[in-house]
Amino acid sequence: MDLALDLARRGPAHGPNPQVGCVLLAAPSLTDPPAADPSAAGDLAGRVLAQGWHRGAGTPHAEAAALAAARVAGVDVRDATAVVTLEPCNHTGRTGPCAKALLDAGIARVVIAVADPNRVAAGGADVLRAAGVDVEVGVREAAGRELLRTWLAAVERERPFVTLKLATSLDGRIAARDGSSRWITSDVARQHAHDLRAQVDAIAVGTGTALTDDPTLTARNAAGELTGHQPLRVVVGDRELPATARLRGPGGELVHLRTHDVGKVLAELHRREVRHLLVEGGPTLAAAFLRAGVVDEIHAYVAPVLLGAGAAAVADLGIDSIGGALRFVARDPVPLGPDVLIVATPTPRTQKET
Amino acid sequence: MDLALDLARRGPAHGPNPQVGCVLLAAPSLTDPPAADPSAAGDLAGRVLAQGWHRGAGTPHAEAAALAAARVAGVDVRDATAVVTLEPCNHTGRTGPCAKALLDAGIARVVIAVADPNRVAAGGADVLRAAGVDVEVGVREAAGRELLRTWLAAVERERPFVTLKLATSLDGRIAARDGSSRWITSDVARQHAHDLRAQVDAIAVGTGTALTDDPTLTARNAAGELTGHQPLRVVVGDRELPATARLRGPGGELVHLRTHDVGKVLAELHRREVRHLLVEGGPTLAAAFLRAGVVDEIHAYVAPVLLGAGAAAVADLGIDSIGGALRFVARDPVPLGPDVLIVATPTPRTQKET
Repeated sequence: MDLALDLARRGPAHGPNPQVGCVLLAAPSLTDPPAADPSAAGDLAGRVLAQGWHRGAGTPHAEAAALAAARVAGVDVRDATAVVTLEPCNHTGRTGPCAKALLDAGIARVVIAVADPNRVAAGGADVLRAAGVDVEVGVREAAGRELLRTWLAAVERERPFVTLKLATSLDGRIAARDGSSRWITSDVARQHAHDLRAQVDAIAVGTGTALTDDPTLTARNAAGELTGHQPLRVVVGDRELPATARLRGPGGELVHLRTHDVGKVLAELHRREVRHLLVEGGPTLAAAFLRAGVVDEIHAYVAPVLLGAGAAAVADLGIDSIGGALRFVARDPVPLGPDVLIVATPTPRTQKET
Repeated sequence: MDLALDLARRGPAHGPNPQVGCVLLAAPSLTDPPAADPSAAGDLAGRVLAQGWHRGAGTPHAEAAALAAARVAGVDVRDATAVVTLEPCNHTGRTGPCAKALLDAGIARVVIAVADPNRVAAGGADVLRAAGVDVEVGVREAAGRELLRTWLAAVERERPFVTLKLATSLDGRIAARDGSSRWITSDVARQHAHDLRAQVDAIAVGTGTALTDDPTLTARNAAGELTGHQPLRVVVGDRELPATARLRGPGGELVHLRTHDVGKVLAELHRREVRHLLVEGGPTLAAAFLRAGVVDEIHAYVAPVLLGAGAAAVADLGIDSIGGALRFVARDPVPLGPDVLIVATPTPRTQKET
């Protein structure tokens, strides 16, 4: 399963489909020595016949890729075990159902890390079981869920996983008194933020930020070049963008959503198969997402800089007293040059069901 | 020298005097095997005759403590080597000069980590050299300086080392809109802050904080009991404290400095032999120390909490544009329960000479 998880990681973190890996193992033969501990990983010992992973929407799923690799290599996979990080789909979408492909290939046993929560695609395990295949679900499930964290949340909630990015001074400001803000955080922190952009499906800003900062909202590498994947660029709010806005320049598709309703924004992005949305600000948009209770994760780049005046990172949240504070839990902080990245996830009461 | 440094650490971190350790080593005899590498630590090899460390102002210095330990044990220290973390003093203060004590005891060689920058007490190495003692300064100097970091800075600048404590939400606020602030940070972070209080000589707050929060400014352990050392409690500003203020209750001595001049505050605390001052707020006092350029270190407890409104951690600093930002460099961040501690020190341009 660890090999399958490693294979899964080779696929893109962005896109509508999850990262999945699949390993086909030879059936134990009578001459094989018995596994030392058949209940543990030893049970999955066996010669690797073929492997595959999903390279993104429109390309074969991991199971199909592994079966194809076996065919190309002329390997017989009848009675083999398929080790796969996510339950094989039972759905004909851009590609055919994987459960049927595994059956057709004569696979005898399927070992799965994570069950598929997708209403449309789920049910593969049942189909396989009904056809007499030995199916086990939940092997290395925690690692599988961690890998698919944002995708699983998006599919379960039927809306994008929302990461709110903040980049502030130590006193919580995103600009000096005169509005100047380039730069509060260091090169190292800003490159880290670009790497995150390259992993998400969409970036959102409010019209205020779009007009004031004239950002490009592109993902760039350390040399300043656009990376291969460019996220959808989403501007939220009523005001028009000028024809000269840099958002209209090279980069991902630009979508202007003329609404202040966070639910409508998420519904539209879900319709567009956005699984991971990065909200970059400004304070008004950040506050709107926080008030809607749909922030799944905060990435706070904190620069050890003091300004004493200037715009705050988050606009009014309607919180009057400390008891109403939105509380998160920080993961281990990450040093980034002179700065610190704090990744925080909601405590249960902060997260609203939508 | 590592043993001497370990001994030094047994002494209190607070108080007017530095943490110092001393080890007396037997002179190499003709029957000793030659050291494998006489240029390195091997040079300091030798039987430990006695050891001592400084237990705080009014008690014997480390050298005197080691010599006394040797006398009690009936050990002959003539021709021995004294390994000491700080240059022996040449000054009769609360105790006699250590340089003379080492000479009187017949010590032949003195190995020192850090030279004494103290104008009054320095010169011990010269006295020893003039009397024919073999003196070496700078052995494990970096480790010695790290241990004496705050004390050395205080003595060199002739004012207390200033640590500014901030305890904020992720959006830089120290209270909600209605002023409520208990608690933004977690138990774990607050206990860490109490441990810091127990290591400093004085804690300062402005009258605004003293009147609004009615703090005790005591150092307490996890059980809520006062720790053995209680720092001086300093209130800065003109307004009177009520007779019922908790600052007048059990804890360190209360000093009310009726001034807004940070230079005067530091001069008075230097006169009182305060080496390490912890500035706890509020925003006005924090800003005054920052504007004066005398903050040597920031301890920022950042809670992954969002408030969206309420008082900011730092009042106006007179900074209009991003180019004027006060910039620090974060050390490795420390996770504290759900919170994060960021310790940051000034970049060279932030620190003014006073």
